[in-house]
Amino acid sequence: MNNYKIIIQYEGTRYKGWQKQGNTSNTIQEKFENILYKMTGKRVEINSSGRTDAGVHAKGQCANFKSDTNMSDEEILKYLNHYLPEDIAVLEIEKVSERFHARLSAKAKTYEYNISVGKKTDVFKRRTVYSIEKELDIEKMRKASKKFLGEHDFIGFSSLKKTKKSTIRNIYSIEIKKEDDIIKFTINGNGFLYNMVRIIVGTLVEIGAGDRDIKSIDEIFKTKVRENSGITMPAKGLTLSEVFY
Amino acid sequence: MNNYKIIIQYEGTRYKGWQKQGNTSNTIQEKFENILYKMTGKRVEINSSGRTDAGVHAKGQCANFKSDTNMSDEEILKYLNHYLPEDIAVLEIEKVSERFHARLSAKAKTYEYNISVGKKTDVFKRRTVYSIEKELDIEKMRKASKKFLGEHDFIGFSSLKKTKKSTIRNIYSIEIKKEDDIIKFTINGNGFLYNMVRIIVGTLVEIGAGDRDIKSIDEIFKTKVRENSGITMPAKGLTLSEVFY
Repeated sequence: MNNYKIIIQYEGTRYKGWQKQGNTSNTIQEKFENILYKMTGKRVEINSSGRTDAGVHAKGQCANFKSDTNMSDEEILKYLNHYLPEDIAVLEIEKVSERFHARLSAKAKTYEYNISVGKKTDVFKRRTVYSIEKELDIEKMRKASKKFLGEHDFIGFSSLKKTKKSTIRNIYSIEIKKEDDIIKFTINGNGFLYNMVRIIVGTLVEIGAGDRDIKSIDEIFKTKVRENSGITMPAKGLTLSEVFY
Repeated sequence: MNNYKIIIQYEGTRYKGWQKQGNTSNTIQEKFENILYKMTGKRVEINSSGRTDAGVHAKGQCANFKSDTNMSDEEILKYLNHYLPEDIAVLEIEKVSERFHARLSAKAKTYEYNISVGKKTDVFKRRTVYSIEKELDIEKMRKASKKFLGEHDFIGFSSLKKTKKSTIRNIYSIEIKKEDDIIKFTINGNGFLYNMVRIIVGTLVEIGAGDRDIKSIDEIFKTKVRENSGITMPAKGLTLSEVFY
């Protein structure tokens, strides 16, 4: 039995996210499992580094699955890409230790969130960039972003209900760059709670637009009240860039 | 009456090209003329630098129209972008001399054609890149591309039927670059016949794949027989990059 690690790219626009769900059928996990079934004649489960939500994209999602196929790595890659739709692609494949698990072994992840400001969004990027009308103060957002760095309980910046699991995460870096009317937020951390990236960006956008005070971030870390943090930014601007092991 | 010059971007995937046609309705020209009618209450004709075919994209198409509206340039730009669909955008607007005509005044144009080779196309670029399986010899295509430079009768590299109009055009440059599995052909010239860019690229691709001899280009310039030149590459890989005045 080999354990295969693959790097995947997808435009999430028309999917209900990564993870298969009871009745719905349009998830990325199912696309893979259906093809792996066709390829091997067996039910093969595929694990990703984490579910991405409906409409979220990935440049470097990582997943693993086990199989005793005697196809070569290159043959598997070609087979998957042949049967996958145009908006999902496998970039790399390699055999890894049987203990490797795409979610449990992950050490860190990078997400990016793209916003176009003012002008109409570049038509060639319209599916992965969220457009807003207001100008944003980049310097102010950079200053505010430092508040998120390091280890915190991020429950107030998440859509999670109360949970017994730890909601402490460590954010290593947040970069905010503007290029040709597009502001890109790049966030790297050891893990992210449900909607956490979208709410952090939503909070920063409200600060950049002048609608919120930087100090409110400290308050939310203290009170842990989700209602006091920023909006959940729409899925279309979010892309999982890379997973680190 | 002001004469407005606008720079336009569009993803051509779902359009039947620029130019309005008898019965069909999904052309870019019509989208503009319908909005200009709504904006001014009058029928306004819009001219582009040239019709692009069904499925062809543009990063820098140029067009002009005349109107006596008293809206400011900025207001017109916003109005157009507001009513245009997501896959068409106006990038710039300016008032120009009344003699300016987007097609008749054009001095040169640049087109690009993008091909992905071998691997599956980057999912985020899949609508503007045409994918082929075979590896292509870039150096050989570069060498062959020099044959097209300068003034020639390009009728053999066009889908035009016989015509009384001149079919002589001047190609100033052809650049071929490979970046991350994508080969980009950039062609600049004083004008292009019907399907000329797509047939030139098709001819170069056949040479790069080892299916055609470089010398065949000289033959076609001599015999002017379209059947002897390469295939017409699919529209999706073609983008009008810039128009020069």
